[in-house]
Amino acid sequence: MKALKERIMRDGKCFDGGILKVDNFINHQMDPILMKSMAVEFVRRFASTDINKVLTVEASGIAPAIMVGYLLELPVVFAKKKEPSTMENMLATSVFSFTKNTSYTVCVSADYLRPGDRVLFIDDFLANGNAAKGILELAEKAGATVAGMGFLIEKAFQHGGDELRALGIHVESLAIIESLDNCQIKLRD
Amino acid sequence: MKALKERIMRDGKCFDGGILKVDNFINHQMDPILMKSMAVEFVRRFASTDINKVLTVEASGIAPAIMVGYLLELPVVFAKKKEPSTMENMLATSVFSFTKNTSYTVCVSADYLRPGDRVLFIDDFLANGNAAKGILELAEKAGATVAGMGFLIEKAFQHGGDELRALGIHVESLAIIESLDNCQIKLRD
Repeated sequence: MKALKERIMRDGKCFDGGILKVDNFINHQMDPILMKSMAVEFVRRFASTDINKVLTVEASGIAPAIMVGYLLELPVVFAKKKEPSTMENMLATSVFSFTKNTSYTVCVSADYLRPGDRVLFIDDFLANGNAAKGILELAEKAGATVAGMGFLIEKAFQHGGDELRALGIHVESLAIIESLDNCQIKLRD
Repeated sequence: MKALKERIMRDGKCFDGGILKVDNFINHQMDPILMKSMAVEFVRRFASTDINKVLTVEASGIAPAIMVGYLLELPVVFAKKKEPSTMENMLATSVFSFTKNTSYTVCVSADYLRPGDRVLFIDDFLANGNAAKGILELAEKAGATVAGMGFLIEKAFQHGGDELRALGIHVESLAIIESLDNCQIKLRD
């Protein structure tokens, strides 16, 4: 998606260790007009996919997910990264974060991820795909189907996308980073 | 706001200790159509307020804030509840949560909350107002002005709203809970 790629090249900041910071328009400050345009692009790419719910993980996934849900007029559920004491019928899984070198829990209530649900999962980044695989696990526990996964930015060199596609998941990423070697952002055309 | 009040009465769940759960349409599963309607209502209520930025706190504030930012075509910044290792020029403050009986850090980068900014703060709940007071502190540190504060739900019996209004802040809440005594939801007309 052209507008996103241009924005990454303009405002993305590259750090050692394959880190891309997009704090200026996605992860801390958000550009709502761009968010809406990205949501429209997801709607287009998943136009022939049968879904009844949008699913994301707090916190940076919420903005693109709510825009997609708004356009499709579908409920949006955000999985939580810690276990709220008041959550009923909790489904949980553990996700290992390479970036932070630690595991965290992702949980969702079975009240809102239900047998038969066909969910579109939306998130900001796809890197090694551990969070996405956690979502697949939660969906399986719930008896729900992940009908598609949409990411704003995929880091192709961390291969999570390859793994998800090999599982037969319909994955769409709006911008794909081939490499961040030598702190140069190299986008796939 | 009528649609929100009706939804609270229909889907809100009351628990001991003055806890209102709105996980069905705000805090876990979200209703994007209602989110947009609530954002429109904020735009109306702050129509005569000069603002250049929307500010919120992760995670439940993000959805209403991005909708307000989208309607007003303004950038939206979400303050974070833990200190990211990569945040530059961090402004931080400590917020005590009565609900959880513990303190947490709220932080924002001075790159995105700047001197002269006039921000509209949007959040899901206003209870004792500690999070909101933390935001006032962050804004002061940044040299920014909080031009208004909009909440989806205010728990009047926890008096944060009284304190903020006494400070001269323009506070708007779309639904005001008078009491949750005996687990009965009593809304202000």
